[in-house]
Amino acid sequence: MKKDTRKAREAPFAYAGLDRLIHEHARLSVLTSLITNHQGLTFNELKEQCALTDGNLSRHLQVLEEAGLITVFKGTERNRPLTVCRVSSLGRKRYIEYLTVLERVVVDAAAAVSGESAGGLGAKEART
Amino acid sequence: MKKDTRKAREAPFAYAGLDRLIHEHARLSVLTSLITNHQGLTFNELKEQCALTDGNLSRHLQVLEEAGLITVFKGTERNRPLTVCRVSSLGRKRYIEYLTVLERVVVDAAAAVSGESAGGLGAKEART
Repeated sequence: MKKDTRKAREAPFAYAGLDRLIHEHARLSVLTSLITNHQGLTFNELKEQCALTDGNLSRHLQVLEEAGLITVFKGTERNRPLTVCRVSSLGRKRYIEYLTVLERVVVDAAAAVSGESAGGLGAKEART
Repeated sequence: MKKDTRKAREAPFAYAGLDRLIHEHARLSVLTSLITNHQGLTFNELKEQCALTDGNLSRHLQVLEEAGLITVFKGTERNRPLTVCRVSSLGRKRYIEYLTVLERVVVDAAAAVSGESAGGLGAKEART
């Protein structure tokens, strides 16, 4: 049995692949927006699409850029400063890996809510 | 047009309903585990299923209990202390609301990754 499979059986709700770098709400918004718009988005477009403040967006862009998940181009357009952000190939790869785990959370959660898995793993009948 | 719909059009990646209380990795693990096992789980069972340390689990259980999303029963069994956690009806309601938004993230993300939405919202053709 592969190590990952054994781990998943021992801790079925650990979701170890749920990359914290991507899972954070604002960064998940930014990355989903950038992957949808792979030509890149300006700072202001990202701010609007993700409903983030200037400070909040700046902070998260820095984290994502330092981790190599996005590239941030700073230049000028018609003599006005312009920042354009794009997802990198590493960012796209890491996002796809994250998405695989997120899909598993949704499947588990939907099954739990609909009661299909109710009373499964580890639950004791006589517990009060 | 309803306010929520307008908001979603203006900021399609804001995911405002992605409740931070539930979205945090460890708490998402704990809640998914508790909803799957609605009779309740002991502290040790939760620790194993979610691969969390004692300290980490204690801290997140306290946050979830204070918010009313779970109930924590502390008693004894065969003269040994036993802690049993259960999801509350408020917890179940909030989790289902969260799940609806999470499903939307997965749908958006999967569409973006497969390139269906590529070049959509806000992207400019001429941007370099």
